[in-house]
Amino acid sequence: MTEIRLVLKADGTTEPFDSSKLKNSLTKSDASDVLANEITAKIEKNLKKVTSTDEIYKTAYKLLKKTKNKTAARYSMKRTILDMGPTGFPFEKFVAKIFAEKKYKTMVGIMLDGFCTDHEIDVIAEDEDDLLFCEVKFHNDLKTKTDTRVALYVKARFDDLKEKEYDLFDKRMKPTKGIVITNTGFTTSAEKYAKCVGLGMISWDYPKKGNLYDLIAETKLQPITSLTTLSKNDKKRLIEEGIIVCRDLLSNKQILSTIGLGKNKSNKILTEAKEVCSY
Amino acid sequence: MTEIRLVLKADGTTEPFDSSKLKNSLTKSDASDVLANEITAKIEKNLKKVTSTDEIYKTAYKLLKKTKNKTAARYSMKRTILDMGPTGFPFEKFVAKIFAEKKYKTMVGIMLDGFCTDHEIDVIAEDEDDLLFCEVKFHNDLKTKTDTRVALYVKARFDDLKEKEYDLFDKRMKPTKGIVITNTGFTTSAEKYAKCVGLGMISWDYPKKGNLYDLIAETKLQPITSLTTLSKNDKKRLIEEGIIVCRDLLSNKQILSTIGLGKNKSNKILTEAKEVCSY
Repeated sequence: MTEIRLVLKADGTTEPFDSSKLKNSLTKSDASDVLANEITAKIEKNLKKVTSTDEIYKTAYKLLKKTKNKTAARYSMKRTILDMGPTGFPFEKFVAKIFAEKKYKTMVGIMLDGFCTDHEIDVIAEDEDDLLFCEVKFHNDLKTKTDTRVALYVKARFDDLKEKEYDLFDKRMKPTKGIVITNTGFTTSAEKYAKCVGLGMISWDYPKKGNLYDLIAETKLQPITSLTTLSKNDKKRLIEEGIIVCRDLLSNKQILSTIGLGKNKSNKILTEAKEVCSY
Repeated sequence: MTEIRLVLKADGTTEPFDSSKLKNSLTKSDASDVLANEITAKIEKNLKKVTSTDEIYKTAYKLLKKTKNKTAARYSMKRTILDMGPTGFPFEKFVAKIFAEKKYKTMVGIMLDGFCTDHEIDVIAEDEDDLLFCEVKFHNDLKTKTDTRVALYVKARFDDLKEKEYDLFDKRMKPTKGIVITNTGFTTSAEKYAKCVGLGMISWDYPKKGNLYDLIAETKLQPITSLTTLSKNDKKRLIEEGIIVCRDLLSNKQILSTIGLGKNKSNKILTEAKEVCSY
């Protein structure tokens, strides 16, 4: 009988290693069944008594990268978004781009007068039926969950705004829904509360369908932080210039020389960007 | 013509030195008119081109201390409360003691089921007419103001609790009011919002009557952190033992030997505590 191997999760708890979970996460990121099986088997063979999810992730990423750059980039999306920090503003812009890709009209960082006081709305998204007011919570640490307090203040803020009409996007309308969007997760209590009061919540893997991972996969928006040919500093410079996703870079290629990169380096970056954007 | 002397405030802005403001703050803390004039004149004479409020405060405190320990202790109340940190728990207990002194029944740190989810209430205070649910926000920095987000989440939390009845203090009743209590100040927007939705707010100097300063003066509760004969470490030990105000110490004198202080030292401390508690 083989000994049970434990996985140490980000929240400090452990659970037995489950090879099907790892395999699923790999196939979900476009790895073929054969490749996913192969990588899972390799990792399982080398597990210690207790291995952190972080270690497992990093090993899987390395193995993926050896075979398929595109799949590895996608698998590492959670970290890629983390690399948009330390401020939350690039992630806000990224969220607005997701909505824009889904045919919403969007605005970022807008102050609006509520019934009692004024509020800053991180992302406003409008289509024919809906006017969504989104609070975007970016955490620099995957262990930090967005908690009930956030859900509570977004609810109270939405209450203060919902009865008024706003002139936005050449239209006059009331907001239809408040949404909290985070790059990490929600506490159980926050999910429970939000569901109960009708507040929208989107995290990396919540709700089961239409979560952040699904939205990125669906819109095929790849943050530039996923490009391995870019240094940390280059990424920072590009984000400051408003280049958030690979597509921004491909439609604005000269930006690379603007931030001081040579021709050779730029070509390598553009080649990777094309590969990553093509799925 | 004398040159204008500037005061550098905690928020980084400056304003011309106003002797009447300093004098007022001194008389408000029980200094006689004569003493307040004397100290104000001394400070005014020694002002630099730009002097921080902090420096002015410290000099005034030193001058007061030379003459009257009791008045100095009161003048330094804002800092005294700051010394209750770094955690907010001693300040929560202190707030509960204030309510108890005003004949409320109190509880600290209680979890209650709301309509949608459960919430922790920092301080619950009940008298014949009212059941107050208080959120106590302690900041370790006087510059940090309690902002609109706090007012919003306390409002939403109160909304989630207000329609339910609770068995508290051998009675079954609905909460009558939510209150935010902080040791620093509120942003203007937070005050505006709270007033508009009927949320109670108490800070060092808000509202004009019945603020934290007034409540402390009225209940004559002196935190043990105001005792100059106690070292920082002694204060910490005493707070851990549940000794929050001078009166706790006077009714539990043997605690000083419990935390390892000698007879001489203990006598000095008790003498000061008696003096400070006697006003």
